[in-house]
Amino acid sequence: MGYGGDVTEVLYGGDYNPEQWPEHIWEEDMRLFKNANINIVTLNVFSWASLQPSENEYDFSKLDRIMQLVKENGLKVCMATSTGAHPAWMAKRHPDILRTDAYGIKRKFGGRHNSCPNSPTYRKYAPMLARELSKRYKNYDNIVGWHISNEFGGECYCENCERAFRKWLKEKYKNIETVNKCYNTAFWGHTFYDFDEIVLPNYLSEHFGNEQTMFQGISLDYRRFMSDSMLECFKLEYDSIKMEIPDARITTNFMWFYKGLDYKKWAKDMDFVSWDCYPFPEDKISTVALCHDLMRGLKNQNSFVLMEQTPSVTNWQPVNKIKKPGEMRLLSYLAMAHGADAIQFFQLRRSIGACEKFHGAVIDHAGRDDTRVYREVKSLGNELTKLSDILDATTPSEAAIVFDWDNWWSVEYSSGPSIYLKYLDSVKDYYSALYKKNIPIDIIGVNDDLSRYKLVIAPLLYMIKDDLDERLRRYVSGGGTFITTYFSGLVNDCDLVTGAYPGKLKDILGIWVEEQDALVENEKNSFIFNGKRYPAGIICDIMHTEGAKALSCYESDFYKDTPVITENIFGRGRAYYVGSRSDEEFYSDFLSYVCSEIGVEPVIHTQNGVEATLRVNDKGKFLFLINHSSENRDVVMPFDAFDLLNEVDVKEGATVLLVDKDVKVYRF
Amino acid sequence: MGYGGDVTEVLYGGDYNPEQWPEHIWEEDMRLFKNANINIVTLNVFSWASLQPSENEYDFSKLDRIMQLVKENGLKVCMATSTGAHPAWMAKRHPDILRTDAYGIKRKFGGRHNSCPNSPTYRKYAPMLARELSKRYKNYDNIVGWHISNEFGGECYCENCERAFRKWLKEKYKNIETVNKCYNTAFWGHTFYDFDEIVLPNYLSEHFGNEQTMFQGISLDYRRFMSDSMLECFKLEYDSIKMEIPDARITTNFMWFYKGLDYKKWAKDMDFVSWDCYPFPEDKISTVALCHDLMRGLKNQNSFVLMEQTPSVTNWQPVNKIKKPGEMRLLSYLAMAHGADAIQFFQLRRSIGACEKFHGAVIDHAGRDDTRVYREVKSLGNELTKLSDILDATTPSEAAIVFDWDNWWSVEYSSGPSIYLKYLDSVKDYYSALYKKNIPIDIIGVNDDLSRYKLVIAPLLYMIKDDLDERLRRYVSGGGTFITTYFSGLVNDCDLVTGAYPGKLKDILGIWVEEQDALVENEKNSFIFNGKRYPAGIICDIMHTEGAKALSCYESDFYKDTPVITENIFGRGRAYYVGSRSDEEFYSDFLSYVCSEIGVEPVIHTQNGVEATLRVNDKGKFLFLINHSSENRDVVMPFDAFDLLNEVDVKEGATVLLVDKDVKVYRF
Amino acid sequence: MGYGGDVTEVLYGGDYNPEQWPEHIWEEDMRLFKNANINIVTLNVFSWASLQPSENEYDFSKLDRIMQLVKENGLKVCMATSTGAHPAWMAKRHPDILRTDAYGIKRKFGGRHNSCPNSPTYRKYAPMLARELSKRYKNYDNIVGWHISNEFGGECYCENCERAFRKWLKEKYKNIETVNKCYNTAFWGHTFYDFDEIVLPNYLSEHFGNEQTMFQGISLDYRRFMSDSMLECFKLEYDSIKMEIPDARITTNFMWFYKGLDYKKWAKDMDFVSWDCYPFPEDKISTVALCHDLMRGLKNQNSFVLMEQTPSVTNWQPVNKIKKPGEMRLLSYLAMAHGADAIQFFQLRRSIGACEKFHGAVIDHAGRDDTRVYREVKSLGNELTKLSDILDATTPSEAAIVFDWDNWWSVEYSSGPSIYLKYLDSVKDYYSALYKKNIPIDIIGVNDDLSRYKLVIAPLLYMIKDDLDERLRRYVSGGGTFITTYFSGLVNDCDLVTGAYPGKLKDILGIWVEEQDALVENEKNSFIFNGKRYPAGIICDIMHTEGAKALSCYESDFYKDTPVITENIFGRGRAYYVGSRSDEEFYSDFLSYVCSEIGVEPVIHTQNGVEATLRVNDKGKFLFLINHSSENRDVVMPFDAFDLLNEVDVKEGATVLLVDKDVKVYRF
Repeated sequence: MGYGGDVTEVLYGGDYNPEQWPEHIWEEDMRLFKNANINIVTLNVFSWASLQPSENEYDFSKLDRIMQLVKENGLKVCMATSTGAHPAWMAKRHPDILRTDAYGIKRKFGGRHNSCPNSPTYRKYAPMLARELSKRYKNYDNIVGWHISNEFGGECYCENCERAFRKWLKEKYKNIETVNKCYNTAFWGHTFYDFDEIVLPNYLSEHFGNEQTMFQGISLDYRRFMSDSMLECFKLEYDSIKMEIPDARITTNFMWFYKGLDYKKWAKDMDFVSWDCYPFPEDKISTVALCHDLMRGLKNQNSFVLMEQTPSVTNWQPVNKIKKPGEMRLLSYLAMAHGADAIQFFQLRRSIGACEKFHGAVIDHAGRDDTRVYREVKSLGNELTKLSDILDATTPSEAAIVFDWDNWWSVEYSSGPSIYLKYLDSVKDYYSALYKKNIPIDIIGVNDDLSRYKLVIAPLLYMIKDDLDERLRRYVSGGGTFITTYFSGLVNDCDLVTGAYPGKLKDILGIWVEEQDALVENEKNSFIFNGKRYPAGIICDIMHTEGAKALSCYESDFYKDTPVITENIFGRGRAYYVGSRSDEEFYSDFLSYVCSEIGVEPVIHTQNGVEATLRVNDKGKFLFLINHSSENRDVVMPFDAFDLLNEVDVKEGATVLLVDKDVKVYRF
Repeated sequence: MGYGGDVTEVLYGGDYNPEQWPEHIWEEDMRLFKNANINIVTLNVFSWASLQPSENEYDFSKLDRIMQLVKENGLKVCMATSTGAHPAWMAKRHPDILRTDAYGIKRKFGGRHNSCPNSPTYRKYAPMLARELSKRYKNYDNIVGWHISNEFGGECYCENCERAFRKWLKEKYKNIETVNKCYNTAFWGHTFYDFDEIVLPNYLSEHFGNEQTMFQGISLDYRRFMSDSMLECFKLEYDSIKMEIPDARITTNFMWFYKGLDYKKWAKDMDFVSWDCYPFPEDKISTVALCHDLMRGLKNQNSFVLMEQTPSVTNWQPVNKIKKPGEMRLLSYLAMAHGADAIQFFQLRRSIGACEKFHGAVIDHAGRDDTRVYREVKSLGNELTKLSDILDATTPSEAAIVFDWDNWWSVEYSSGPSIYLKYLDSVKDYYSALYKKNIPIDIIGVNDDLSRYKLVIAPLLYMIKDDLDERLRRYVSGGGTFITTYFSGLVNDCDLVTGAYPGKLKDILGIWVEEQDALVENEKNSFIFNGKRYPAGIICDIMHTEGAKALSCYESDFYKDTPVITENIFGRGRAYYVGSRSDEEFYSDFLSYVCSEIGVEPVIHTQNGVEATLRVNDKGKFLFLINHSSENRDVVMPFDAFDLLNEVDVKEGATVLLVDKDVKVYRF
Repeated sequence: MGYGGDVTEVLYGGDYNPEQWPEHIWEEDMRLFKNANINIVTLNVFSWASLQPSENEYDFSKLDRIMQLVKENGLKVCMATSTGAHPAWMAKRHPDILRTDAYGIKRKFGGRHNSCPNSPTYRKYAPMLARELSKRYKNYDNIVGWHISNEFGGECYCENCERAFRKWLKEKYKNIETVNKCYNTAFWGHTFYDFDEIVLPNYLSEHFGNEQTMFQGISLDYRRFMSDSMLECFKLEYDSIKMEIPDARITTNFMWFYKGLDYKKWAKDMDFVSWDCYPFPEDKISTVALCHDLMRGLKNQNSFVLMEQTPSVTNWQPVNKIKKPGEMRLLSYLAMAHGADAIQFFQLRRSIGACEKFHGAVIDHAGRDDTRVYREVKSLGNELTKLSDILDATTPSEAAIVFDWDNWWSVEYSSGPSIYLKYLDSVKDYYSALYKKNIPIDIIGVNDDLSRYKLVIAPLLYMIKDDLDERLRRYVSGGGTFITTYFSGLVNDCDLVTGAYPGKLKDILGIWVEEQDALVENEKNSFIFNGKRYPAGIICDIMHTEGAKALSCYESDFYKDTPVITENIFGRGRAYYVGSRSDEEFYSDFLSYVCSEIGVEPVIHTQNGVEATLRVNDKGKFLFLINHSSENRDVVMPFDAFDLLNEVDVKEGATVLLVDKDVKVYRF
């Protein structure tokens, strides 16, 4: 749904901070925006200190002038509440707003992400500001969205948080005995007699090394608590705005795969999802696509807003490579192909001071309209005006991959069997294989409806929460196909082991995993699947079939000839277990095999490096062709279609040429 | 002596934590123990919080039931005092029990090893609990040993420790002038006028980088003090138990080569030594053997208890490889071959929660008796019943290697000449060469009797404490053979240099070391010894003979043709100096040369990879043959013997086959 | 000028700490000094604790005896004020003297560099001691210099420093609006309303990672402030001494390229420059020479004192290699060739305890006069007596390289474009190329006179302070030649960007830099210059000429065929811009090209590895020939000269042989 409401065009623009410049620059900015087909600005992201000089004083005069100017110039506004960094005076007078780090050291004023989410000061003044802003600007009909704070994240370990954590635990567990049981405190004699004996898990208590913990239970709960604490801050501002503007469309900008916050839980309380896309040079394109699909999946596969991307270069990576000609355009269309309905930049004009002054911008320090970057921004702006019909189109997926923050946290808190167990890596293994086949994928949470899919994959499904096993049982027995992996089914939501592995998934999978061998770096076992040899590494489950059929066995070590991949017919469906980690080729071949067994089809077949993605709404079906390779590629059109960017018809069977980095969008 | 007392069988079992499970599981455990020939359980290791709900309240009801049950089932008990982790309520109400880290940050409740050894609270309640336990269970004649706390270790830098440190210094030095002299405080003007000016050496004062110090003297004293502080805690509990049970056999479990505590000093105050053996995958088997020999040597070469080993897998290593079939058996016999009289596991039943839930156990999460691990445990249990005669047998060594905590500490606190000077590495150089020749080795302290040995090796004997030089002088002049190395003889027990190198060893060695060159990584000089070329690295001492004979000289650099290895005839003995670090081949060849000169003989000669070890008592001589190679190996029996495990006679000259990982034990 | 005053010989000696030994050793020291031609001792470096036992008590009795002894033995004295480490009692009674680290943790007593520069206690007692010392010893005419504290450095973040920082800011900026503008606080809403809201930039506020900052402006100001704070401490002692001894010659010993203090600013307040030279094994000889030239340049190209070097070995490097025969002599002459007038060692006698006991010394632990090191020291001492005429000779340079602490700080605080931008590396690129050609180089500050030079090179001249652009404009238009590089001209002294790149240098260079691409490690572009191909890495500026001529263009990427090196004729001079980083060969070839264009000549041409350096005064011209290669080298004398060390005449055209590491000094 993106901004939704009355928006009828692809919104295009980005973060705009006119308060950093003298007002005579503003007029020039308006000219440059218009010339580049920019139609939306995100305002007010970091203005708290200037809007509120003291506890009881607000000064909106400059923002009034800005709002007036952008309205006159026909720009839509995404209005930020500017609570992403508190004022210096507030930190000085109300130090409870400052965070305490994982070593127990209280911070001073500085940076951003700097407010304690359980600070009474923060919880008072942040929503107050949101209320004041919405009261003052509620009649601006060009405000299409509200943007609370900025990139929520981080964590705090102060005394207010400790008290709030105890309260949170009391609400969750009711009595201390349940806490003891859930945390298994009998181990190492950590039995609590009172909630007040519980301290925050950090480097002063249960943590050590690099985010390792001695008690997974409490550390998991702290993650849930901290995510909830910030979500409460979000909701306080949300409610303040809604009190003034009941139909406001409210979001906050998410960040990539951000481990600290359970975005799936957050999305429920947001009107739409938006996010900031800053891949590293070493990220594969499939990882970027996965993240877009994740964002789409957070809120029921609805479209979202690409709130930030750089038009050219970041400044905060170790080495900041520029986006080459065509690269920004390609990445913008990639976002749209996977569900974005608006394309925005950080930032419209480049700051002259402080740490982001070398971050790319539409208007750079030279202030000229003849730079390569400006020209490319302008050209894309022109194209996007042709794509309004795509708004709200959805992705028709038959396959889903489960992504769950609790599993991410608990897998990586696990002490043993191997530090090489990485949740994202395993998700990418499966996503990437399907993505390269042009098979549309939904990223779903553990509570989402499974019945919509022919294929559900849950890599590293270590923790089985709530009735997930029962829902999987129903899904598979009802005809669904399920794939899971080593280190799955082991624990309940307290991170307590639930018996022989893979626990509650045993009957569905028809196996018993007796042991888990861990392989050191570069150590490999191997197996043969459909006549081809693949490596097995990191974890080698040693298992017995109990109903399942072994599709492949290990080739060496003392567990040679024991199963590594199994298939279990369960009711009307089937369940696969992959007991070790293999390589890219295996995942591709294995998923080809499974998909062909159950009839999961690609959008269309394309040559290597060309992505074909589909979005569908009542205005038509929209095919995106994106050439990620560094060479020219041909695609034979499988149907008649209309080329939206070039405004020409293309016939079925025609050969379409995509040059390096080119993108085409068709309606059919 | 191991558990000693009336124990007449090889005890076999391990840590058992029934308090983590509902009682109906306990009966099943008894069945599984009996079936696996398990005859001892270590109880109560982490029960403080459950045994003592408040300052004046104890609750032994559950432990009573456990003690009753295990007695009924004929199990011996190693009774832990459970003071290895304090209760949460105690930390909350008496925060002096919490430790302060080396950065001066006070910890909160959490983890284990968490009590300040100079905390009045800890020193009050820990011995009180030990007293209560011994009072309550003193009539259980199946208790064969008492296990104080658990794996003592770590360190504290709180104000109580600072005060205690000043007191410790006052007792040691009497007056502040002596402190100034011993620490050489005139350097950098650190002169103290009063004991109260002295602060703990840590990252707030004299330390920096990775455990480096600006004043070695105070840092060494802190290590001695911290080891003593914990030893006092041990002794407080020890005395409490002895007050109730004068003939109790008391230990605490040591850990590998643990640098923080002077185990040699501790062992004096313990009734027997026990330790926990958890090698890393990259540890050589000779290192494991060395550690067993070290433990045997701590208490006069008496036998010891292998208190913990994993039956299958650890969880806390980065990658936790499983012990393959036969590996646990081999490692158990290795322990016994080097002096263990009891073989115990951590743990008997696998926890379902917290950080060690993926640590191996005899009974794993599946709870079944048909797992590979359970079957191997049971099979070994059966074998051990045949080896009771070996109890208390000793190792007949003619060679000894000196191991000394003060030297370990001071060598590695040294600023210069090279960070590559590592005490353990040098000890391993010599141990490993003798071990591979099947030459029995005693690991001795600097105050142990030297006259028992034909050969004494003291690698990196940097610090000469007390009258060690005089005792070495007597030993060598009396006919002994002594080997030492570069960076030896330099300082006294205050870490003050005692003149021209190698200080008080100069006359014994007959050399003067003028300079010490340090070689960067991979840089090598070389020398020829008995016609063969070897590398020289890390340190190259540049020396002059003053009576000694050069056995070999450097081949390059400006000190080409100056001595690197010397031999000095001193009285009726000889002293060798090895002025640089070489490679495995050199140590093997050099020690073959020295041993053949003085008639130090192997147990028997075996093929590569087969270890032959001897233990002797009044019931016979016991030969262990252990095949560490990954192939079958033959051994020709040099005498008639009785194969204890297979219960057959073997004749002199017969060829015995040891398959991969096999072990045989003979009496002759 | 070195010690200047009445000194008429090359002073030779070093740090001497007799307070560490019993007095009977002192007489032996005198014998050994005399025998080695040592004529100066630096006394009293770390004696504060022994000189001042309490607030109101001084005890100079031992120093009196030392002063008496060295005077009797004809030794000159460099008198240290011993305030480089405060007494333990002072730390205990006046904890404001202790520093607080960048994490806000207050240190305890220990180490050195340990006094807070804004501590009232330190600012009271340090000058008081300097005053007492100068009062007591002012009549010793053998004191040739005063040595304040020792190796000033480090930093503090305590509350006194925070208050002092606010005061410093208030003096600099007058009002808070100017601070906000200069720091661009509108970014991220860091607007201050009052100076009291400003906190020190450290890991509690704006810093993160490895010395990265979120606000460059405040972090730069903190560096300036901390350098100034210590300089004030220096000046307090300086003034105390001058009150007693108006013509005292006062210095403090600098350290290598020390980033923390703006030595250029400090040198203004010192009577002469002295420094401690401890290269690492991996440092190139050109880097050592550069550092000598830097020290000479700090105070107007006057000669300086080599206050410390080791005669043999350091102890604090990871691996401490010994200086081989001849190496100490060569390094001593290298210092003299680049402007040293005195050669001193740390230390004359080796400590027996604490962290520097394995640091080399003229007299080592054996205390003998027949060591290699002592013999080499003695031999050099003998030679130096022949070189008195060289005192105060200067270096005739036509080329200068700009070195500026503000630029060093700001380049490396920059967030983007690449962490591989290292100020020193870029300075070394250019220095090393000229050095290898025997072209004399002055290292100058941004405010030094440019008109003396034919060539001025300013690598990474990121920040243009004051009127530097105007002075460069005048210099170039007046006929000078100027070279600068990528990442130059970008900001003003607040680190605010000043428009299109390279900002105020645009007209001088005749270019516009539109984009800066950053290349990952080992990634390279390339270009051809004068027919030869060179690599381009780290940064590739993408630029347009605006008057300049492209000398070379990139060979690949989308900016293929755009300029990488440009030349601009500007008035009567020319300005070169090098838009990327290349390799050693390029810098050599490029500077050969430029130097030959403008007639900058080497001292003489020599074979590879032989350095030729010139010093000139009214007693003659002095040519140093130094053979850095590891082989014999010939030099053909270009003029008649007198060999000062061998005391023979050499004729023009004669071939002089320099063996490995040899040095010759000629007057002509």
